[in-house]
Amino acid sequence: MTSVTRPSGRPVDALRTLRLTRDYTKHAEGSVLIECGDTKVICTASIEEKVPGFLKGKGQGWLTAEYGMLPRSTHSRMDREAAKGKQSGRTQEIQRLIGRSLRAAFDLEAFGERTLHLDCDVIQADGGTRTASITGAMVAAYDAFSKLKARGLIAEIPLKHFVAAISVGVYQGTPVLDLDYVEDSNCDTDMNVVMTESGHFIEVQGTAEGAAFDRAGMNRLLDLAQAGITDIVKMQKQALGIAE
Amino acid sequence: MTSVTRPSGRPVDALRTLRLTRDYTKHAEGSVLIECGDTKVICTASIEEKVPGFLKGKGQGWLTAEYGMLPRSTHSRMDREAAKGKQSGRTQEIQRLIGRSLRAAFDLEAFGERTLHLDCDVIQADGGTRTASITGAMVAAYDAFSKLKARGLIAEIPLKHFVAAISVGVYQGTPVLDLDYVEDSNCDTDMNVVMTESGHFIEVQGTAEGAAFDRAGMNRLLDLAQAGITDIVKMQKQALGIAE
Amino acid sequence: MTSVTRPSGRPVDALRTLRLTRDYTKHAEGSVLIECGDTKVICTASIEEKVPGFLKGKGQGWLTAEYGMLPRSTHSRMDREAAKGKQSGRTQEIQRLIGRSLRAAFDLEAFGERTLHLDCDVIQADGGTRTASITGAMVAAYDAFSKLKARGLIAEIPLKHFVAAISVGVYQGTPVLDLDYVEDSNCDTDMNVVMTESGHFIEVQGTAEGAAFDRAGMNRLLDLAQAGITDIVKMQKQALGIAE
Amino acid sequence: MTSVTRPSGRPVDALRTLRLTRDYTKHAEGSVLIECGDTKVICTASIEEKVPGFLKGKGQGWLTAEYGMLPRSTHSRMDREAAKGKQSGRTQEIQRLIGRSLRAAFDLEAFGERTLHLDCDVIQADGGTRTASITGAMVAAYDAFSKLKARGLIAEIPLKHFVAAISVGVYQGTPVLDLDYVEDSNCDTDMNVVMTESGHFIEVQGTAEGAAFDRAGMNRLLDLAQAGITDIVKMQKQALGIAE
Amino acid sequence: MTSVTRPSGRPVDALRTLRLTRDYTKHAEGSVLIECGDTKVICTASIEEKVPGFLKGKGQGWLTAEYGMLPRSTHSRMDREAAKGKQSGRTQEIQRLIGRSLRAAFDLEAFGERTLHLDCDVIQADGGTRTASITGAMVAAYDAFSKLKARGLIAEIPLKHFVAAISVGVYQGTPVLDLDYVEDSNCDTDMNVVMTESGHFIEVQGTAEGAAFDRAGMNRLLDLAQAGITDIVKMQKQALGIAE
Amino acid sequence: MTSVTRPSGRPVDALRTLRLTRDYTKHAEGSVLIECGDTKVICTASIEEKVPGFLKGKGQGWLTAEYGMLPRSTHSRMDREAAKGKQSGRTQEIQRLIGRSLRAAFDLEAFGERTLHLDCDVIQADGGTRTASITGAMVAAYDAFSKLKARGLIAEIPLKHFVAAISVGVYQGTPVLDLDYVEDSNCDTDMNVVMTESGHFIEVQGTAEGAAFDRAGMNRLLDLAQAGITDIVKMQKQALGIAE
Repeated sequence: MTSVTRPSGRPVDALRTLRLTRDYTKHAEGSVLIECGDTKVICTASIEEKVPGFLKGKGQGWLTAEYGMLPRSTHSRMDREAAKGKQSGRTQEIQRLIGRSLRAAFDLEAFGERTLHLDCDVIQADGGTRTASITGAMVAAYDAFSKLKARGLIAEIPLKHFVAAISVGVYQGTPVLDLDYVEDSNCDTDMNVVMTESGHFIEVQGTAEGAAFDRAGMNRLLDLAQAGITDIVKMQKQALGIAE
Repeated sequence: MTSVTRPSGRPVDALRTLRLTRDYTKHAEGSVLIECGDTKVICTASIEEKVPGFLKGKGQGWLTAEYGMLPRSTHSRMDREAAKGKQSGRTQEIQRLIGRSLRAAFDLEAFGERTLHLDCDVIQADGGTRTASITGAMVAAYDAFSKLKARGLIAEIPLKHFVAAISVGVYQGTPVLDLDYVEDSNCDTDMNVVMTESGHFIEVQGTAEGAAFDRAGMNRLLDLAQAGITDIVKMQKQALGIAE
Repeated sequence: MTSVTRPSGRPVDALRTLRLTRDYTKHAEGSVLIECGDTKVICTASIEEKVPGFLKGKGQGWLTAEYGMLPRSTHSRMDREAAKGKQSGRTQEIQRLIGRSLRAAFDLEAFGERTLHLDCDVIQADGGTRTASITGAMVAAYDAFSKLKARGLIAEIPLKHFVAAISVGVYQGTPVLDLDYVEDSNCDTDMNVVMTESGHFIEVQGTAEGAAFDRAGMNRLLDLAQAGITDIVKMQKQALGIAE
Repeated sequence: MTSVTRPSGRPVDALRTLRLTRDYTKHAEGSVLIECGDTKVICTASIEEKVPGFLKGKGQGWLTAEYGMLPRSTHSRMDREAAKGKQSGRTQEIQRLIGRSLRAAFDLEAFGERTLHLDCDVIQADGGTRTASITGAMVAAYDAFSKLKARGLIAEIPLKHFVAAISVGVYQGTPVLDLDYVEDSNCDTDMNVVMTESGHFIEVQGTAEGAAFDRAGMNRLLDLAQAGITDIVKMQKQALGIAE
Repeated sequence: MTSVTRPSGRPVDALRTLRLTRDYTKHAEGSVLIECGDTKVICTASIEEKVPGFLKGKGQGWLTAEYGMLPRSTHSRMDREAAKGKQSGRTQEIQRLIGRSLRAAFDLEAFGERTLHLDCDVIQADGGTRTASITGAMVAAYDAFSKLKARGLIAEIPLKHFVAAISVGVYQGTPVLDLDYVEDSNCDTDMNVVMTESGHFIEVQGTAEGAAFDRAGMNRLLDLAQAGITDIVKMQKQALGIAE
Repeated sequence: MTSVTRPSGRPVDALRTLRLTRDYTKHAEGSVLIECGDTKVICTASIEEKVPGFLKGKGQGWLTAEYGMLPRSTHSRMDREAAKGKQSGRTQEIQRLIGRSLRAAFDLEAFGERTLHLDCDVIQADGGTRTASITGAMVAAYDAFSKLKARGLIAEIPLKHFVAAISVGVYQGTPVLDLDYVEDSNCDTDMNVVMTESGHFIEVQGTAEGAAFDRAGMNRLLDLAQAGITDIVKMQKQALGIAE
């Protein structure tokens, strides 16, 4: 552990305070407000009683995700994507990532011809919105499936394993966990990691924006992420009232 | 006053509980969460240090508004407008209404070549989202101008008068104030009224979706709206800590 | 009655000359050229033998409207919406208003699984194009239903009541009827009113662009509109050769 | 001359009745209603006091054209291009043709840094709308330049030569002039020809939709077109009150 | 034959070197690289086992074409149409021309409910890309139908006649065959001609960009095109190993 | 090394045959055809003498990338993105990856106010198109900068280090290098790695589409990628005639 001082004052391996508020809004089958420090995302899970055309009649379900940011969730106001008439490449990249991550968490063949829509909407951004979205959407999806089970529509929650996500990065030469916006915009490398509760990788997306990173740095980043995700999964289960 | 029983149980002339939470998010110059019963809208006011092309060099400001709904703010999930690639006619109609209403509240010539962007994003819908947006945006805009004044960029808040809005409607033959979703979807007439604190009309938009309404009904609706708006303006000022 | 002099020289309660030319073009089931002074709109009514998806199999009909302006119908040339790739918010607002107004005129359940498309295209604009569109579309729709009846496809014209529309406004402090472009661009308040032949309101859309208007002004505007619409409905019936 | 009987009853080399109504609408610098039999097109010419970016500062003008059809100008209603959000390939092809044809009629270097916008809007279609648009736009453009000259903004009308257009086609094996809709939809070959008053070709666009045509057929079609266009140019000049 | 010296040094009636490479890529049923001098186009023919909606159940096939240019196929880089979000008018005009031309080559009723998609993508442009596309697509389509026949899905190749295309133009007053980019950008008239192997016209599209051309010039251009196309059809058949 | 048999028959750590053809097309400053087995991508590098708005006047350059696939580069024909009117999320994700990777290869501050556009167009796809694009674009960009240097516009090629890319994956439980299409569509994990010539990471994008992978698998994948990229960089330099 080096002695770098992070802008946030946190130790290099410390997560920001994480809060998961379930039933945040009243209409969705699952609705979670996730707060990671000052990053706040509303994650809703909506059940639709049909599947996209390419799955019709196959007896299986589908899960898809969308992501958005309120125009003034950010430091300076961003243009509204609905008004511009298209989603940015960044937005599409993130919602594809959320979708793939959550499809790894559930057994799509085990909840009938239904679609689970996950909507992750950032109301306040301070770094790590995509990983917060994945972590929060996991809880919202679990709640939605619980509701389906409670209504007798499925026998079991089609869970394969919990997934959670976190960012890691190299700040002033030192690998650190869970970057906030100030750290993120000054770091050389940014990596988003999605893992299962058992420590397997679902997604690894690392980008060297400044100096490229070597294999040792890579290993240290993966260590930090793995430890962080282990803690986050515990908090997900706690929020859901599930014994480990 | 007739004896109709509203689904909400409220008297015909009763507003829903109204809550205004200032500084709801941290980046915007003004940020208000408005809750009218179960309707919840985040209203942010953002100052931009330039004006649209048609006003360049004229020494005056501009104020514009945008409106959106989170996909699962509603009973069943709506398609995301950013993903569809365009805003619906309803959305455009509403954001044009919000913009006109707030431009009536402030003196555009008195805050320099700046644009005030109002973003009204519905996170939970239960009827009356457009009037809640106007009422909340008024407070957010006031806060944003206060900040400009505090920074010494303007001498005075360019206020002409407070504006607020409310819906009225004819439910089972009886004019009622402040319809929630259940009442709204079963009423014959729906009217949105925007007024100044001194009881003048800014906007009146009435639509008979079922039976057309006669002049007496119109008068009763306007009475209800006027009384309601008087109360709402008091709550706006209270939230802002302004003596009447 | 005050002594304001209108740019048009008309008394405050005088309509412009109104002309309704039926069978203006040859393909449409109903085709009307409406001229209100120098405002000229082609209104066509087209019957399509199917309904939108959300009504399929319900045994009822649908009525929808679209609105457009030729690029040089206006004082200076406007961009063509088809070339820009989208309809403006104003256009969408107007065509939604026309659609709602005409759906109030006819019994949608009484003409089978058919869609009536109303197209209102402004070829020359001089104020009041949206109200002229409604008034003209009423006649075109009536003609189209007459044709359906003549072909034995429906037993009766599914008329609930005639509807017509007019604008009123406050010009130099005085409420006046049927504003032309010069009056409209200099008035403080503009209100569009849609009523049935029996004097009930379908739509009221009032906007204070300058000084807000008080309740007495509102009442005077509604008086003017009601008298104007009574006259217009007479002209619609006369054009159609219907005895009152 | 063979003895084929055309659906229209016209001799093979006969034009439909052609009417040119100038000053059809009041705002445009040039505004012409052209009627070729039952085909009716409003052609307006609008002067704008600037040129597109690629011509800025070059001291010359530009001329461009747009084309549209009212949704029910046709036998069955077409979708409105503004509502669909794009112009069809056919529309773009036609407006490019009109633009090229009229740019050949005028000297673009001789009317200053101005743009002439030609808008050709079909209000009733019965075949030959693109050639009618060119013929009518010629007259509208001439009128617009006359107005510029009358205002002293240009010394002379920057005319190179009159242009006009007509369609020819092979109907039941026989070349015929000026096809109406019924003839057009049953012919093997359709050719649109744009020529100058002195009999030179500006555009030739021939398509064999059925049987391909040989060189002799080609020659006969060009003969018919040339004779037709000579007559049409006379009518253009007559309408404009220009002695030949 | 006049003594004009073409930039290419070719005689006025000489084609550029033409090369047709079959099976250029491996997935398409037909795949041809056509090189006309420095113009290079990849033409693929893809069989799809269904037809567009308007042909469903009619027992016949359909043939359609699309055209594109790689952004740096041209002298200076063009914007990518996919990134701009729409195809230009020129692109649509060209792909409509290719489609019409090839639909004239084959009997659409004789290959079952299938669609043949022709994709013509320019990888290097030096004039004449649309005519090269037609000539190359003819060979690719023939190959695709051969494959269908070899698989026993159709009894015969549904050939009506070979089609090929070439451009002609007036360069410095002299009609010339097969213009390259330098010639094309300096010529007065440009004409694209599509003919059958028996010398009948499918399409003639001539445009006078500079001086209009008279009837004698037209005749000379058609002579040149006819001779050129006769040679090109020989090369198409040779490439396909078909005896004449 | 396990004994899994790859569909390609290659050893687990073997690259496909790689060919780099420079000057593949004639207009671009850099133009490379890269072939990785049956995957073929045209990579062009185009210099534009200006920068995007956000960099104007800062004295530095910009580098951006676009990616596309010909419609029939794939097993079954894909819709053309230009015709659909938008680029897919996958396309945008890939072109963002190419851009970031190449911006890491060059010193943007050292080539003046110019933009280098990289266009990667897949003409035949058999797996690994995004990594082939990066590897090929590196060579095309180098060539473009060489041309700038040869013209005396820059003093040195602004190279930071060579970058190259390769995919690795877990096929039937075994990590393998450089997946072709058949392997890719049957593998559990797919990882794209971009590295510098000195073995540092620029990008790592791993996705578990089937079973999640553990840390040991991750390490083995990174070993394979690193060895592959070392070989590829040699081939890039060889193609460019650069001594190591």
